Amino acid sequence: MLNFKKILPIVCILCSASILYGQEQNLVQYIKPLTGTDKMGHTYPGATVPFGSVQLSPETDTQSYELNGKYNKDVYKYCAGYQYQDKTIVGFTHTHFSGTGHSDLGDFLIMPTTGPLQLNPGTTDKPLSGFRSKFSHGTEVAVANYYKVQLEDHDIQAELTTTTRVGFHQYTFHKSDSAHIILDLMYGIYNYPDKNVWTYLSVENDSTVTGYRQTNGWGRTRTLYFAMVFSKPFKNYGYQDNSKKKVYRGFWRKFKQDQDFPEIAGQQIRAYFNFNTNEGEKVKIKFALSPISTANAMNNLLNETPDWDFDLIKKQGQAQWEKELHKIEMQADKETKENFYTAMYHAFINPTIYMDANSEYKGLDQNKHTAEGFTNYTTFSLWDTYRALHPFFNIIQPRRNADMISSMLAHYEQSVHKMLPVWSNSANENWCMIGYHSVSVIADAIVKGNTFFNTKAALEACVTTARHRNYDGLSYYIDMGYVPEDKNSSSVSKTLEYAYDDWCIAQMAKKLNRNDIYVEFMQRAQNYKHVYDSSTGYMRPKFSNGTFKKDFDILNTDEAGFIEGNAWNYSLYVPQAPKEMIDMMGGNKKFVRHLDSLFDVELPDKYFAATEDITRDGIIGNYVHGNEPSHHIAYLYNWADAPEKTQQRIRMILDRMYHPTPDGLSGNDDCGQMSAWYILSSMGFYPFAPGSDQYSLGSPAVENATLHLENDKTFKITARNQGKKNIYVKKVTLNGQTLNRLFITHSEIINGGELVFYMSSRP
Amino acid sequence: MLNFKKILPIVCILCSASILYGQEQNLVQYIKPLTGTDKMGHTYPGATVPFGSVQLSPETDTQSYELNGKYNKDVYKYCAGYQYQDKTIVGFTHTHFSGTGHSDLGDFLIMPTTGPLQLNPGTTDKPLSGFRSKFSHGTEVAVANYYKVQLEDHDIQAELTTTTRVGFHQYTFHKSDSAHIILDLMYGIYNYPDKNVWTYLSVENDSTVTGYRQTNGWGRTRTLYFAMVFSKPFKNYGYQDNSKKKVYRGFWRKFKQDQDFPEIAGQQIRAYFNFNTNEGEKVKIKFALSPISTANAMNNLLNETPDWDFDLIKKQGQAQWEKELHKIEMQADKETKENFYTAMYHAFINPTIYMDANSEYKGLDQNKHTAEGFTNYTTFSLWDTYRALHPFFNIIQPRRNADMISSMLAHYEQSVHKMLPVWSNSANENWCMIGYHSVSVIADAIVKGNTFFNTKAALEACVTTARHRNYDGLSYYIDMGYVPEDKNSSSVSKTLEYAYDDWCIAQMAKKLNRNDIYVEFMQRAQNYKHVYDSSTGYMRPKFSNGTFKKDFDILNTDEAGFIEGNAWNYSLYVPQAPKEMIDMMGGNKKFVRHLDSLFDVELPDKYFAATEDITRDGIIGNYVHGNEPSHHIAYLYNWADAPEKTQQRIRMILDRMYHPTPDGLSGNDDCGQMSAWYILSSMGFYPFAPGSDQYSLGSPAVENATLHLENDKTFKITARNQGKKNIYVKKVTLNGQTLNRLFITHSEIINGGELVFYMSSRP
Repeated sequence: MLNFKKILPIVCILCSASILYGQEQNLVQYIKPLTGTDKMGHTYPGATVPFGSVQLSPETDTQSYELNGKYNKDVYKYCAGYQYQDKTIVGFTHTHFSGTGHSDLGDFLIMPTTGPLQLNPGTTDKPLSGFRSKFSHGTEVAVANYYKVQLEDHDIQAELTTTTRVGFHQYTFHKSDSAHIILDLMYGIYNYPDKNVWTYLSVENDSTVTGYRQTNGWGRTRTLYFAMVFSKPFKNYGYQDNSKKKVYRGFWRKFKQDQDFPEIAGQQIRAYFNFNTNEGEKVKIKFALSPISTANAMNNLLNETPDWDFDLIKKQGQAQWEKELHKIEMQADKETKENFYTAMYHAFINPTIYMDANSEYKGLDQNKHTAEGFTNYTTFSLWDTYRALHPFFNIIQPRRNADMISSMLAHYEQSVHKMLPVWSNSANENWCMIGYHSVSVIADAIVKGNTFFNTKAALEACVTTARHRNYDGLSYYIDMGYVPEDKNSSSVSKTLEYAYDDWCIAQMAKKLNRNDIYVEFMQRAQNYKHVYDSSTGYMRPKFSNGTFKKDFDILNTDEAGFIEGNAWNYSLYVPQAPKEMIDMMGGNKKFVRHLDSLFDVELPDKYFAATEDITRDGIIGNYVHGNEPSHHIAYLYNWADAPEKTQQRIRMILDRMYHPTPDGLSGNDDCGQMSAWYILSSMGFYPFAPGSDQYSLGSPAVENATLHLENDKTFKITARNQGKKNIYVKKVTLNGQTLNRLFITHSEIINGGELVFYMSSRP
Repeated sequence: MLNFKKILPIVCILCSASILYGQEQNLVQYIKPLTGTDKMGHTYPGATVPFGSVQLSPETDTQSYELNGKYNKDVYKYCAGYQYQDKTIVGFTHTHFSGTGHSDLGDFLIMPTTGPLQLNPGTTDKPLSGFRSKFSHGTEVAVANYYKVQLEDHDIQAELTTTTRVGFHQYTFHKSDSAHIILDLMYGIYNYPDKNVWTYLSVENDSTVTGYRQTNGWGRTRTLYFAMVFSKPFKNYGYQDNSKKKVYRGFWRKFKQDQDFPEIAGQQIRAYFNFNTNEGEKVKIKFALSPISTANAMNNLLNETPDWDFDLIKKQGQAQWEKELHKIEMQADKETKENFYTAMYHAFINPTIYMDANSEYKGLDQNKHTAEGFTNYTTFSLWDTYRALHPFFNIIQPRRNADMISSMLAHYEQSVHKMLPVWSNSANENWCMIGYHSVSVIADAIVKGNTFFNTKAALEACVTTARHRNYDGLSYYIDMGYVPEDKNSSSVSKTLEYAYDDWCIAQMAKKLNRNDIYVEFMQRAQNYKHVYDSSTGYMRPKFSNGTFKKDFDILNTDEAGFIEGNAWNYSLYVPQAPKEMIDMMGGNKKFVRHLDSLFDVELPDKYFAATEDITRDGIIGNYVHGNEPSHHIAYLYNWADAPEKTQQRIRMILDRMYHPTPDGLSGNDDCGQMSAWYILSSMGFYPFAPGSDQYSLGSPAVENATLHLENDKTFKITARNQGKKNIYVKKVTLNGQTLNRLFITHSEIINGGELVFYMSSRP
């Protein structure tokens, strides 16, 4: 007999999403979480809810697991903990970055096992030598907010789901008198020696454990607290301290601490909890996180998962996804649909909510703060996401984007550097990459009228950040108009990005009627010109004496002067003034030929070694889609009076760089930036220069897409005569009027209406 | 011209104490903080207010300073950071235990220097090789809440004072363009490698620094936060990280971090702040602590030290001491007076207040709690202090003692072990020594009617603690009636102390009408009999098979079966049943001879090596006053019908074991226990068995003493015909009535009245 009491609320939640949008589409079915888990997508297949604090996912890592004392380059593969090619799973952890090019997290590994207790993970070639287990993709189910796999060596079915702050585990055992749940506090992603600063475990009763893990990693001073509740009492428990340096013992010696001792602390702890299980018995675990305290973690747990109904939690999370996906209803072929909604999924993972149910969060100053009037977010991969993800949010998640900006402003307030975030996570700034692209995110929101935050404070924060003379060559940039390569590395990349960021500040200053600031920063926005070498036609490293670096290789990504992009690609990075740049480079015709050669050149093999985070598939000629400095490049043809080439290149990139398969991402998804590029480009427009209210038109890949905006208006995009070969746009109409320009504006979208592309197979 | 605006409030504060007690005595003059700083008193000479969270005092340590990789026995000398014999000072730190036999703390060393910047401390034999400095006692002033010394190598006058939560430094420089304040986060008392788990510094502006130090020491998982404000801006600053393992650097490399970089983190940090100074310029520092956060530390700082008036802060603290000392006004010769008020001073240092100005504190569960309706205390050296310090508090500080018990009950609530504190500090249990003497403190308060705490919860906590089968041999004790030496070490000491503690539980159960518990624990209180060996007349280690250990040395402190006391002394530890014990040991006559031999024996040299924490002066025969298990022994004669011998021994101990000089303490002061013994014994009575309402009478050393009680009554003790040789008590009257017993009761004291001893030179 069906248990209607349990099913009804789920059905209702699912119904409500459907009813809300007046149709019956199940869009979560198109989410393919495994996409990007093979090769260098750096995504993870596990369970999470939109912008969730918990990302509960399997770990297959072996390379960085051992404390081998030095950086292992293979570590890079395991930024998200899981590689599709691997044959074993070592456990499931609660925190993951999605698509990053650097690694951290992987907190609190849980592994269910049976048989003799093993407290070492074992090796991939000999999984039976430890607690890890073989698995096969045949038993693996990875869908929105649900992951399932059979742990073959232990004959346990593992299932995972989540709420915003709670990971919910369900392990189905056979009959056993030696079933174990291992809680490994040693494990972490990129786990070099002494990354664990301190860990702490408190066994509060026969089914409740709390504690924390403090690490010195990408987040230099990071602590994460947890509360863990088992669905049945364990019969006993214990732990192993694998630290070479034992903790201070003193009179603690009076206890036999390794078994059934409820207070455990040290640097390298693996704990276990033993059970007897009946045939088919499900042992469930609720595992809540908090940035503040174990008390807050427990409060989160009770608040979000009061019951033990795994299926309910799973379906509630899927309903959340369904609601988010329904913000864009689109039609296209199945692969495009899967690409599109998987991209929506990846775009709505980061930034992540970073505050407890009671609105408390840890600030950059390491103090406790309460988010008043906004939801606090973390995981700001801004060098990536300012380009398309935050502009996308300004269209489809404006309220969240404003809260993200409020979070960035709180970071600024708490910063002794008096700087907006560069790459921030978990109350830590890791300073990754270059620029100060928070200002782009803020300018884009202000210019587009998304101002649910303190715009005056925001402008001040942007200006103060941009005037920070101790930051990364900025004093030279301010004084000399460029970063000299003999004074600071990656000087060309920095000069170009600072100049763009400065233009962003000017745009918001203009909007906020601060002409003084507008003038100052429009001046600085011209600085790109100072690193342009007209003799070669490329941006080129310049020394403090004003001369250019003599020898440099325009194709080499590791070349001095540049970072995460070669001179060829970076030389095109003037999004704030494309027309001026094209003129500077010789005018439209010459520029189009130049751009064509970028896509058409055959790159010698030697250049692949350097581009570690993208696969060979991620490169078209010398166009590196897997790295963000290229993301605006295909749209540059529009400014050189060759829009048909933009259209052709965009469709080629959409077609070749994205597939809804494990190896379907051509490079790191970078916290949703790659995905946001796909979503926007496949709808036919792209924020070429965030901070401007214009979107450059490309060539849509969808048949149609309807955007349900937060202001209750809808904006519909239709591609008439769409088809695989019909990649050219003959005509565009906006609300029935032919559009005589190659862009649409933000207000045209946000006011609702219909954009129709008339497609053709010929330019 | 005198600045009356500044002087008036100080004068008023000092007046108010005098006016309150209707006389003009200045009692703080009798406080000699240097007492006990030579040899093994383990007190410190620095500044503190009564029960203050901050104990700001000089460090002279060299032995445990270096990270030499192994325990150095000399570390023991430096429990309080300072040894009177030393010739150099390495800096001033903010936290100290007073008189303990184990070491920790010494947080946040500040050292002012001049000349070329030196960031290593140097060595005692070559102080110029580092930042330490020679000093001489000639320039040293150590009085209540004020310490002054000339740092000779830098020609700087250092002055220290405090409030409850703020250390206030005043350094007088000569004219210099290279004056430095060093903030050393590496330094700590007993600072073995990796004791520092993590330290963090944030330079918030040109005169404000915040941060924290997290250690794994006696407090296993301890973190202390601070906020530090300079009276003038530093011109620049920097730091050195002396950790072998550098912290994760990543993109932090983009900064030059060692100079003027405001966010510092790592394991072994020494920071410095540079100044220009004029001739005679005073650079002042306010340094506030918090167990919770840097924000709370800053709040404490602003709350307690809003201004920069060093003298005001000093005098406010001295007025606090004056007020506390005035609770007992006494007359005696100068040395006795100095002994007495110095003992009061040492008795009112510990336990220490452990909560912020906003009542927030860190609990044993590592969560933040708010003390509702009580002041939260820490530093519970209970194996020592249950004997006389807490009973003394029940007379003269009952409200504080009740709050200390509330703090202990909060500890219990937060304990996953479900145990009351054993030896707790800073949200940590260090389990030091044996027994569960919290129950004695609680029973003593309940039996004496000092019940400003939840007595029902207290009884439950005591019972649960005493039934904890995993604790230190308790399961054997519960099942077999004694701790078998083959199952658990120090078995005799534990059996005897458990039996006493159990009697305490029975007493409070009786008072609270819980006859079931009374019966259970009175039964357990008899367990001392199970380790008594009638064939030798001593308590003796017993095995689980019921036989006694064959060979054992009754004089050896390191002997199996005992801890911090030899069999001779420990065999007399049945405070709950002295009469029964004396009968068991052969009756009064035999027992008196036995006891005489304790005091009169000449102890062979070989036994001194083992008693590490007491000087040879601390031993009379084989009576070891420097160790607590003896503290009731001199009063035992009373029960053997030989009160004149109690009188004689007490006066001998008072006379020989206490002097108001650096070498004046015969052993560790043990957080005030040694001092409380002095105060009570010198007034003629002693809590022989805390948990009873009786005080055993001895022989007063004062001429008179008036106790100003919290209930506004006074209790006066007078010794008629007092004199050095008049050590015997002919007669005692209470409120004019001759007392025909050898004790007074707590209610007789607390109801006010007069106790008169009639002294004589003959028994």
